[in-house]
Amino acid sequence: MDIAKKILLVILDGASDRPVKGKTPLQLANTPNLDKIASMGISGIMDPIAPGIRPGSDVAHLALLGYDPYEIYTGRGPFEAAGASIPVKKGDIAFRCNFATKRGDVIADRRAGRIRGTGELVRAVQEGVHLDVTFMFEKSAGHRAALVLRGSGLDSDVSDSDPKHDGEAVRNVRALKPDAERTARILNEFTKQAESILERHPLNVGRVKAGKPPANTIITRGAGMVPDIKTFSEKYGLKGAVIAATALVIGIGRICGLNYIETKGATGGVDSNIDAKVKNAIDALKKHDFVLLSIKGTDEASHDGDVKKKIKFISKIDEILAPIIDLKDTLIVVTADHSTPVAVRDHSADPVPVMIAGPGVRADNVCAYDEVSAATGGLNRIRSVNLMPILMDLVNKTKKFGA
Amino acid sequence: MDIAKKILLVILDGASDRPVKGKTPLQLANTPNLDKIASMGISGIMDPIAPGIRPGSDVAHLALLGYDPYEIYTGRGPFEAAGASIPVKKGDIAFRCNFATKRGDVIADRRAGRIRGTGELVRAVQEGVHLDVTFMFEKSAGHRAALVLRGSGLDSDVSDSDPKHDGEAVRNVRALKPDAERTARILNEFTKQAESILERHPLNVGRVKAGKPPANTIITRGAGMVPDIKTFSEKYGLKGAVIAATALVIGIGRICGLNYIETKGATGGVDSNIDAKVKNAIDALKKHDFVLLSIKGTDEASHDGDVKKKIKFISKIDEILAPIIDLKDTLIVVTADHSTPVAVRDHSADPVPVMIAGPGVRADNVCAYDEVSAATGGLNRIRSVNLMPILMDLVNKTKKFGA
Repeated sequence: MDIAKKILLVILDGASDRPVKGKTPLQLANTPNLDKIASMGISGIMDPIAPGIRPGSDVAHLALLGYDPYEIYTGRGPFEAAGASIPVKKGDIAFRCNFATKRGDVIADRRAGRIRGTGELVRAVQEGVHLDVTFMFEKSAGHRAALVLRGSGLDSDVSDSDPKHDGEAVRNVRALKPDAERTARILNEFTKQAESILERHPLNVGRVKAGKPPANTIITRGAGMVPDIKTFSEKYGLKGAVIAATALVIGIGRICGLNYIETKGATGGVDSNIDAKVKNAIDALKKHDFVLLSIKGTDEASHDGDVKKKIKFISKIDEILAPIIDLKDTLIVVTADHSTPVAVRDHSADPVPVMIAGPGVRADNVCAYDEVSAATGGLNRIRSVNLMPILMDLVNKTKKFGA
Repeated sequence: MDIAKKILLVILDGASDRPVKGKTPLQLANTPNLDKIASMGISGIMDPIAPGIRPGSDVAHLALLGYDPYEIYTGRGPFEAAGASIPVKKGDIAFRCNFATKRGDVIADRRAGRIRGTGELVRAVQEGVHLDVTFMFEKSAGHRAALVLRGSGLDSDVSDSDPKHDGEAVRNVRALKPDAERTARILNEFTKQAESILERHPLNVGRVKAGKPPANTIITRGAGMVPDIKTFSEKYGLKGAVIAATALVIGIGRICGLNYIETKGATGGVDSNIDAKVKNAIDALKKHDFVLLSIKGTDEASHDGDVKKKIKFISKIDEILAPIIDLKDTLIVVTADHSTPVAVRDHSADPVPVMIAGPGVRADNVCAYDEVSAATGGLNRIRSVNLMPILMDLVNKTKKFGA
């Protein structure tokens, strides 16, 4: 069979970098397996959005799945909410939330002492707060949570209550246009009622007694509307799965109609059980046409500015990815959502290296997976939003334009 | 410091070319310093506008500064007027003008014998002409001048009075759409009054006596409206300077909010004092975040069809650029605004070689600055309008799209 049937898309979050003393972490790491895939396939560089546009993780992943973020993206909230298992629907307005500690009007700790186990608090808020729209409040990792408002006349164009820095006053949510005034009012009402419930909740009374910062308020950010998009199966006719540790990527997968396959011990850090994730991905390919495998630790190491940790983790990923080389009838695609240079400790706009190996691929002369080698490859310079159409064509499932 | 702080953009006007007997002037010239910068940095080819689109110098420079000419460009007049030190404002209608010699209805000499020293004539016209809008008339280099009309109800969509060739009748200015009728009428009135003043001006009377062609009319072309754009500091948050010899580049710089730094002896030709310009540029980087250094002689040599002159001048530029290699914390960017093949003696649409060296840059294997080497580089193929966003990301000053 000369035409690939399945697609494995491996996203090494923020793995792409700039040179540190002359070489990038991908160049410095020991990556015989990634290099093998490069030598089997075609490489190139890829702008997450467009040259010089610095992307967030949300828009970067949407583009990789072939959804133009300029058309559908309004904020990160919907994807975080879906990742927190809230069954969002098109048109819902969603927010990222933190449980936080408020003293007077000031946010003393945006993470309430990095509180864990907020299930009780979440249930108390869901049961105790009464709004004139439907709402769903759910916990996410650690101090994080997500809120969804559902009803007519809502709009995502509202400001954050999260002041972003400890020691600043919590902000009143404001409408950024007249249509959003009702949403802002409802959100402020939610916070007011939630604070009254949280203040007297036994868990917080206990934390205060124990000298811990209480989770006595909820701050919101990243308002967005759940987009009205075609699911992955509607758009591509593919049955897809997502294997990831972070709520964002899981949520993007869910909103795009991918099945989320949970992996025990997946943390999103360099301590993640990536061995199990890779096994899960290979297994998922038996029942799916498309599997997105997201590995996040590379990005974490970059945000920490820790080049050694990043190099070590890339070498570990390489070792664990070895079995994917033997996949049959499958396009093996390896890339990054965006660059996260350790020198910057944040995302940059630099293009990412991408490679595709498998049946029908025009193998080039590139034999290493890194930013500089990839730039000499047969894909030249593409954009993330081009990737899915290219893969769809390689699995022979594109519609013809013209006749 | 691993992140660049400043940007030096060197534009070798029209340096990019096609092969002449197998090699381009950039390949044939002796350029050890440009080659050193190539080997330090990342190279690529760059379409001034888009593949196959042959650009004027005006739109090419706007694109290099990150302004999309399709959105803001209506004609060259505004930039020439700003370059001639007319304090233009958004919405002004501006024209390039020539003092010319008219015999009967025919333009005998479009440059009035390449007249110089037109200051007196300009003052006489500015004082003697009376229009029902505000106007500013100013001399530029040699026989050139610029005219600006300011007032309500004006429109730049008018034809040229300049017939473009000697021996043709001067053209009546026509409105190219109904809204521009008033502007056409005012312009024809300007010419009529100016001719009457010029005809009897002592300077022209003297020229006729001396057997020289009198500057007895003013012909106009390049009508355009001063665009409503963000200045460089509003758009990028950068304090910028421009070092150039030609009114066009100075004017584009001024309209984009760059400080013009004058250089004694800068002519825009191969005889220009480029040594002083390079010193000025290095000096300007102390007080600016961004410096545009424009060197024009390469384009002049191409328009003359003189390949030897072009090669010799490129070698001279290379020698004089040597000190920029030692700039610290600075992105050194070298490119051309467009190609001007000596064989064509005019601009072509061929992409130009571009290179970026400095902190954080992914150095590639290119080690020569020329059209063919650059095409194998790590930037692959970009467009001029992409350049500023890429540079802004390298100095870590881009906003994030998404979260």
